[in-house]
Amino acid sequence: MANTTPIKALLFDTFGTVVDWRSGVARDAQPFLERHARHVDAFAFADAWRREYMPAMEEVRSGRRPFVRLDVLHRENLQKALQACKVDTASIDARELDELNLCWHRLDPWPDSVEGLQRLKQQFIIAPLSNGNISLMVDMAKRAGLPWDTILGAEVVRGYKPSPQVYTQTVEILGLQPAEVCMVAAHNNDLAAARSCGLKTAFVLRPTEHGAAQTTDLHAEQAWDFVPRDLIDLAEQLSQ
Amino acid sequence: MANTTPIKALLFDTFGTVVDWRSGVARDAQPFLERHARHVDAFAFADAWRREYMPAMEEVRSGRRPFVRLDVLHRENLQKALQACKVDTASIDARELDELNLCWHRLDPWPDSVEGLQRLKQQFIIAPLSNGNISLMVDMAKRAGLPWDTILGAEVVRGYKPSPQVYTQTVEILGLQPAEVCMVAAHNNDLAAARSCGLKTAFVLRPTEHGAAQTTDLHAEQAWDFVPRDLIDLAEQLSQ
Repeated sequence: MANTTPIKALLFDTFGTVVDWRSGVARDAQPFLERHARHVDAFAFADAWRREYMPAMEEVRSGRRPFVRLDVLHRENLQKALQACKVDTASIDARELDELNLCWHRLDPWPDSVEGLQRLKQQFIIAPLSNGNISLMVDMAKRAGLPWDTILGAEVVRGYKPSPQVYTQTVEILGLQPAEVCMVAAHNNDLAAARSCGLKTAFVLRPTEHGAAQTTDLHAEQAWDFVPRDLIDLAEQLSQ
Repeated sequence: MANTTPIKALLFDTFGTVVDWRSGVARDAQPFLERHARHVDAFAFADAWRREYMPAMEEVRSGRRPFVRLDVLHRENLQKALQACKVDTASIDARELDELNLCWHRLDPWPDSVEGLQRLKQQFIIAPLSNGNISLMVDMAKRAGLPWDTILGAEVVRGYKPSPQVYTQTVEILGLQPAEVCMVAAHNNDLAAARSCGLKTAFVLRPTEHGAAQTTDLHAEQAWDFVPRDLIDLAEQLSQ
């Protein structure tokens, strides 16, 4: 029965699924690295920064650390990433690091994202269910033209995906049943967690999220409810 | 200095300031009352329902009751309002009351609200800072065309205005200083609470929120930072 329940809301993973974080971080880091660390490649630096993402959230997910928003984790991770790249941060003004930290608020959408979301918004509630904090998501949306109905996700429920309560509490906030909500992501593990909470699932392939040599999330690892080519195709499939 | 700090975000009281709750509730209650209580005037019923609003939230503000979202309070208050109007609720199907409870999700904007918000959105982050819960605000916005950047307010911070932490935590979520945020409301007490937390303030006169015989909030009771005629005028004033 669940599969025939009409969908009322779509929740979107954002980093990698809706926006291209790696190119955006590399672009904004480039002038910074030219000033302070000319030996560091901007994409390698973006990867180093992102490498700290999962372990930092795991501290919160495990309960070892109270919830703090992603801007705070990103700022701590920036310090670690620079150290990993052998950059001496002692001589860099903290305000310059604070400013670089905001590059996550300025990521560009994939080419299909804005049109896809605009179409989907005609028919469904659309919101990010991202680990990004609210102001990050608002700044990103205003700059990129992402037409969210509201921002949901980590900061609203004070937890990080893929913890089950992030999905279940978000569905409850929407006043819906899990089967009325579809999680949209480029990451199989995000969809697996959503499915185990009873949500519908849509896998969008983003084969260059991690660059041309990407080895993960290159195909649907389960029979997800929808496997659209991109968000415009998802809108087409859901309008039928 | 605070007064010269540029505004970056506008937060809006919603019931009464952006939408006309009294006409909307009366409109949706009318057919219900015709079925179950032909002696009850729909506007008197709307007033009776609203009369339970402040006392119900005060239970949460005082700490006597854990936070519950406004949909829950509205549903309890509906029962009380019907009893106050001498309606026997025992014979009414609970699902019919659940459906009537959703009339708060279907309120119409004042004539200037949509255009005013559209203009303000070009220059500022705009969000409701309402006691309404997230799904109520999302449903209302999609139906009425309110172009919020995100939904903030009671459910995000798990508290009810005019508790100070509702304003201060919302400013912190936005990553802004209080003086960079302006509270917009038709209610002097809301603005007084916001001002005491360091926010800027804008008073919008809504002289028929409570009907033609309204006696409260008919003028600015303090020298608020802005006293626009309506939200379009606020956009004009802030674009200068």
